[in-house]
Amino acid sequence: MTDTWLPSLIAATPQAGFELAVKLSRVGVKLTQPSEEMRDKLRAAYEQDTAQLIAASQVVAVHFQTIAAANNYGRS
Amino acid sequence: MTDTWLPSLIAATPQAGFELAVKLSRVGVKLTQPSEEMRDKLRAAYEQDTAQLIAASQVVAVHFQTIAAANNYGRS
Amino acid sequence: MTDTWLPSLIAATPQAGFELAVKLSRVGVKLTQPSEEMRDKLRAAYEQDTAQLIAASQVVAVHFQTIAAANNYGRS
Amino acid sequence: MTDTWLPSLIAATPQAGFELAVKLSRVGVKLTQPSEEMRDKLRAAYEQDTAQLIAASQVVAVHFQTIAAANNYGRS
Amino acid sequence: MTDTWLPSLIAATPQAGFELAVKLSRVGVKLTQPSEEMRDKLRAAYEQDTAQLIAASQVVAVHFQTIAAANNYGRS
Amino acid sequence: MTDTWLPSLIAATPQAGFELAVKLSRVGVKLTQPSEEMRDKLRAAYEQDTAQLIAASQVVAVHFQTIAAANNYGRS
Repeated sequence: MTDTWLPSLIAATPQAGFELAVKLSRVGVKLTQPSEEMRDKLRAAYEQDTAQLIAASQVVAVHFQTIAAANNYGRS
Repeated sequence: MTDTWLPSLIAATPQAGFELAVKLSRVGVKLTQPSEEMRDKLRAAYEQDTAQLIAASQVVAVHFQTIAAANNYGRS
Repeated sequence: MTDTWLPSLIAATPQAGFELAVKLSRVGVKLTQPSEEMRDKLRAAYEQDTAQLIAASQVVAVHFQTIAAANNYGRS
Repeated sequence: MTDTWLPSLIAATPQAGFELAVKLSRVGVKLTQPSEEMRDKLRAAYEQDTAQLIAASQVVAVHFQTIAAANNYGRS
Repeated sequence: MTDTWLPSLIAATPQAGFELAVKLSRVGVKLTQPSEEMRDKLRAAYEQDTAQLIAASQVVAVHFQTIAAANNYGRS
Repeated sequence: MTDTWLPSLIAATPQAGFELAVKLSRVGVKLTQPSEEMRDKLRAAYEQDTAQLIAASQVVAVHFQTIAAANNYGRS
């Protein structure tokens, strides 16, 4: 991944910040398992496993904390 | 999800903030498993699994931390 | 739960803050599994499972972090 | 537990703060499983399970974060 | 590891900060299991286990939080 | 452990801070399982279990967050 996929932590709205958190979660997995074919195969399994869906949601929560702080929590 | 579901992190009361944290936890799962039918099926399983209920509660706790900070912990 | 169960994050003492953290952990589970009967049944199981007791203790720790910050760590 | 077990988050040294974090971790478990007899029985099991020892160490880490912040990281 | 592998927490861009977070996650594993041969063997297994990929992504998220704060979230 | 093993959270460099985080993770386990013989036996098992290596790396990440903050992220 030599291209730019994270130019900034600034998000226009809290919701855009949440979506950025989801993206960061996915990139975190991608950097560990770079094969898209393998990730697709794995996704089929974990999308049906609530324990893993919750764990994925936890990763999003941690990234959202970072992004919310970066955006001063949407306060002007 | 193109509609607005997170206009702000500001909550009128700590309790409203906690409820927003619960909402964020659910959206985190939803963005990973978008099929409502599948989520309903899965919910039936994890609602009876205390390990997963506790894990879900952990995600709420992380989001509540973010929201409480965003609201300056309810201090005026 | 339409009544007020979290009027404030302010606690008179660190210990009261810790007890509030325990309460928040429980509410987090309650909002996911609202059936008290089911929760009682589940409790019997997880109270004998150290992995789950530790996980529950982790949720308390995260909430306590929030509450301690809200109370400026008990500093005057 | 009606007696005072957490009068303050202030610790004289970082090490005393770490020990307080360990104490908070234990109290977190205690408030979920109040039976000392049961906890002793359970301890025998989890002390030989590295996954649980690591999980317990994670709870300590979160509490230590709180206590270190409360003590301004030992800076004068 | 006596050489310098972490001269600074400062990253030129958010993306470079994320890559540093990935590096810190790997070093955290390395310091526990120093044998490269063993880690290579283990990697083959966990790259096909989504639960572990998500857990690894969680570690990255925590480190990224630290690095983002160190860089003042990319704000000038 | 009556001797001093944590005189300060201050580290000369980010790398020294990371090593201190690793140390704190180990002490967290040690205070739960004080028997060195038992820990050595357990280590043999978990060093070959990637899930546990990742979990250990997560504990390091949380401690590193604390230490990095204590050192003002290496900023002068």
